Amino acid sequence: MQALVFDGELVLKHDYPKPNRVDEVLVRVLRAGICNTDVEIVKGYMGYHGVLGHEFVGVVQDGEMRGARVVGEINAYDETCPTCLRGDVTHCPNRTTLGIVNRDGALAEYLALPARNLHRVPDSVTDAQAVFTEPLAAACEITDRIHIRPTDHVCVIGDGKLGLLCAQVLRLTGCDLLVVGRHADKLAILQRQSIRVTTDASSIHRQFDFVVDCTGHASGFELARRLTRPRGTLVLKSTFHGGQETAFAPFVIDEISIIGSRCGPFEPALRLLDKKLVDVDAMMSEEFPIEQSVEAFQHAIAPGVIKVQVVM
Amino acid sequence: MQALVFDGELVLKHDYPKPNRVDEVLVRVLRAGICNTDVEIVKGYMGYHGVLGHEFVGVVQDGEMRGARVVGEINAYDETCPTCLRGDVTHCPNRTTLGIVNRDGALAEYLALPARNLHRVPDSVTDAQAVFTEPLAAACEITDRIHIRPTDHVCVIGDGKLGLLCAQVLRLTGCDLLVVGRHADKLAILQRQSIRVTTDASSIHRQFDFVVDCTGHASGFELARRLTRPRGTLVLKSTFHGGQETAFAPFVIDEISIIGSRCGPFEPALRLLDKKLVDVDAMMSEEFPIEQSVEAFQHAIAPGVIKVQVVM
Repeated sequence: MQALVFDGELVLKHDYPKPNRVDEVLVRVLRAGICNTDVEIVKGYMGYHGVLGHEFVGVVQDGEMRGARVVGEINAYDETCPTCLRGDVTHCPNRTTLGIVNRDGALAEYLALPARNLHRVPDSVTDAQAVFTEPLAAACEITDRIHIRPTDHVCVIGDGKLGLLCAQVLRLTGCDLLVVGRHADKLAILQRQSIRVTTDASSIHRQFDFVVDCTGHASGFELARRLTRPRGTLVLKSTFHGGQETAFAPFVIDEISIIGSRCGPFEPALRLLDKKLVDVDAMMSEEFPIEQSVEAFQHAIAPGVIKVQVVM
Repeated sequence: MQALVFDGELVLKHDYPKPNRVDEVLVRVLRAGICNTDVEIVKGYMGYHGVLGHEFVGVVQDGEMRGARVVGEINAYDETCPTCLRGDVTHCPNRTTLGIVNRDGALAEYLALPARNLHRVPDSVTDAQAVFTEPLAAACEITDRIHIRPTDHVCVIGDGKLGLLCAQVLRLTGCDLLVVGRHADKLAILQRQSIRVTTDASSIHRQFDFVVDCTGHASGFELARRLTRPRGTLVLKSTFHGGQETAFAPFVIDEISIIGSRCGPFEPALRLLDKKLVDVDAMMSEEFPIEQSVEAFQHAIAPGVIKVQVVM
């Protein structure tokens, strides 16, 4: 099968072996998205080699769900270790992660996942929309783990893919929301939903109960820290390669909480898509056939581009 | 009056002016403690110049509480700003802090504080014990802000003054507690309370629901991070001067929370002392008269020393 593989360099393979995992379900991929994590992987993050991609919609090829149009949670876990038994399956120490850790990903004609990872897509949700389920679930992880009150003052920093989704999910809490970004065209997507936006946060200090850093850059952390009020919470949503010089005394003095947040629940994300409570159509930049997936990858990192999808 | 002053160097002044603040209460200091924060201030932390010291017991000299033996909360706040009205008075942006920010401290014959900052000391609590109220309140801040369950696995790193107090407070939750330290003699204080201790955490990884870093060193943060389980919480209790290189991706991947924690509530700390639920007597290393307070300060940073107090 055709598959976009990273093995030190990015290559479209034409005769990559079809996945063949015992006790798993084969899925024919209809579409897959390109995420910043994929871009970071190609920079060396996670040390992953294999088929890239973890955002997809596809059709089940075998088993009880055969023929169903599905999206899939990306962490395959063992269900028996103490971490899984505690309910933290996405943190299973024995997990593999689609296109990220020891498991070929979704930028290919076929993928395999355990049946329990798959979720049926409602008919009301298009293929292109369904591919947003995974990053939208990551945005839902914020409200799944943290109680955001309608009276809270919340700031999202970053107007990339994840920032736009986090802002839209947080908007639904009724909170007082501000998004700080750099791109007027991306921020316009949020303005159409009456979300307050700015490209200049230089005059804002220590005002927000919650600040969500979606920038994927070290500079975002510094800004997020400056915008968080004493006893406020800084949510780290984005991963990036490398470290940064950080002084921790200010976090102790201001009693700030920093909360790391990663993969989230698929069912609420599918409900938000089904009920049209989140606009992902405006985030679609371009689609490429898998034959042009290397070009798609180059396009995904170009300025102004939001979401690029690959069609199989 | 006599006062231990830091103005770039540490000097015992003999004719320092007695505090004279309108709308505040004059307190004759009986005893004051030397804390690691004082040591950090002398290294340049906070840029503070003035009378050092913020742990004390004293006798009120005027007003309605005249004659009362008291301890005092160290942050003087305005009570009218949004931060105070939200209840976060210790974070008042207009605050002064005894011996730390714009307010002469307790290593002197007299100090002044607003009446609302003062708490009467129960007769059952000795002067030497009462001086521990402030750091014990800081330990109580952990359980005041974070729900530690009796089923939780908790680790305290650091066997200095704050570590010994945090461990004793956390022990009372009934949690499964381990203290990692470097000094057998200090850890022995905890062992007498049946607290499990170790000097070697090299074989422990990602096991604890909560890890409390009381080391006051950058290395403590790294160890704390390694001991915290995925979705666990790392509590930062100690402040120290300077920064450190930190990679944040692991905190996102493991969805770890980092919670900064500073000053705490005095009333529960006084109850713990009154009911003898915490042993501070074992933490008393030595006392010096104020005439020898510079020597007391030198002694406080010597190896093996826990708490040094100065008697006025």
